[in-house]
Amino acid sequence: MSHQVERRLRLYVDFMSQPCRAVIIFSRCNKLPVELQMVLIHKGETRSPEYLARNPLGKVPLLEDPEAVRSGEGPGRDAHLCLTESAAIMSYLSYKFPELVMEHWYPRSDPVQRARVDAALHWYQGNIRAGAMRLSFHKVVAQRLGLQGDERVAADGLKTLKLALSGLEEYWLAGDSRLFMTGRQPCSADLLCACELEQLHMLKAQWHGTSLDEILAPYPLVQAWRQRVRHACEPHYSDVHAVLVKAAAVDPRPKL
Amino acid sequence: MSHQVERRLRLYVDFMSQPCRAVIIFSRCNKLPVELQMVLIHKGETRSPEYLARNPLGKVPLLEDPEAVRSGEGPGRDAHLCLTESAAIMSYLSYKFPELVMEHWYPRSDPVQRARVDAALHWYQGNIRAGAMRLSFHKVVAQRLGLQGDERVAADGLKTLKLALSGLEEYWLAGDSRLFMTGRQPCSADLLCACELEQLHMLKAQWHGTSLDEILAPYPLVQAWRQRVRHACEPHYSDVHAVLVKAAAVDPRPKL
Repeated sequence: MSHQVERRLRLYVDFMSQPCRAVIIFSRCNKLPVELQMVLIHKGETRSPEYLARNPLGKVPLLEDPEAVRSGEGPGRDAHLCLTESAAIMSYLSYKFPELVMEHWYPRSDPVQRARVDAALHWYQGNIRAGAMRLSFHKVVAQRLGLQGDERVAADGLKTLKLALSGLEEYWLAGDSRLFMTGRQPCSADLLCACELEQLHMLKAQWHGTSLDEILAPYPLVQAWRQRVRHACEPHYSDVHAVLVKAAAVDPRPKL
Repeated sequence: MSHQVERRLRLYVDFMSQPCRAVIIFSRCNKLPVELQMVLIHKGETRSPEYLARNPLGKVPLLEDPEAVRSGEGPGRDAHLCLTESAAIMSYLSYKFPELVMEHWYPRSDPVQRARVDAALHWYQGNIRAGAMRLSFHKVVAQRLGLQGDERVAADGLKTLKLALSGLEEYWLAGDSRLFMTGRQPCSADLLCACELEQLHMLKAQWHGTSLDEILAPYPLVQAWRQRVRHACEPHYSDVHAVLVKAAAVDPRPKL
């Protein structure tokens, strides 16, 4: 019995992390047999010796697959697969559970469509993520973790994000029949991009000088797409974002 | 005859771009039937109407595959596949030419090893690329393109890069038998990371306050790995970097 439990897939996550939320929603939408294990960043749990033994990079999400025995060549000190990087985790789960994960999430059989989703995933990293993450970190998250944010880096992140949103509006979502980034159904990149943007709910105009609504105002296709991603993933999308919504309502200024 | 020429794979590149160099080296190492088409960033060619019709994102590299007919769902205005993102291009080429591209570059048959390479590719984007690209852009490239670099963003890029180099040293390259990021032979992520670091040859201690040698000094495993990546890819690695080496030798200061 305990043997059986140990062989289950485990996903180490913090609901406050945008890529974690994407992988959790992906797992729930596809009814994957994945057990969640909380690792709270703000409590230093990603830096604990136990966690660093699993993932020396000290990041979440992490997928542990006891069934995937190490070939002796992989990185880390894992006897079995300990997989980092949200996009790689979703692709791996798609191949592991072909009977559960529909092709549109990550195409296994069509090489051209897979290439398009791969391109969308890598583009997300260098554009949406590169911009939004630096913006939210330096404007909001740093302060909450007791660190010093850098306004110039936040401004550069916002500049990167605006270029990324133009790319989303004018390239990924352009075209008559396009509903999601790579077609008429959502892929893993749609989820990652949408969850990254949700993080910006933490920005409040009165405290941070800008807000998600203000940032998205010039991009009507992006706004409509966000609603489509949400609807395609309910009720999981709202459930998984509940912690963020609660956190975003808290006044971030130091108490007097 | 002209029909045959039109059906050839075309790779749009600028040798001064680090991801372009990685894809070119990958193509040459694997003897792929890919025709190079120069698109010079500093001459504004990535912003020409002709190029934007192929890639509205205005970036290189771009792979055009006339054989991959559009399904009607892909992004862009392409009647056939116009694929962006260097990592996606290398994965696509691996699937398209399984008889030419060895599995170690991008694993097609082993899902666990493929997941590790995918993780390395995504990690490169958010770490090595995120750090080194901002550092080289704001310290060197901006000035050469007649733009204003931002020292604070360059400093943040250097901070990101140093964390990334620690990750490369202590995670990706750690372990007794490790020679490359995901095993004993190079993968596409090794090439992308190495080409990104080469770009920092543009940094000169006397002009920019730091240099590639200084940045890499604390990381002996990274230094040894760089030489291994180079040796695994010669003579193409040196050939493809010749333009960069020449450019790096030019005094970047405005002429008096």
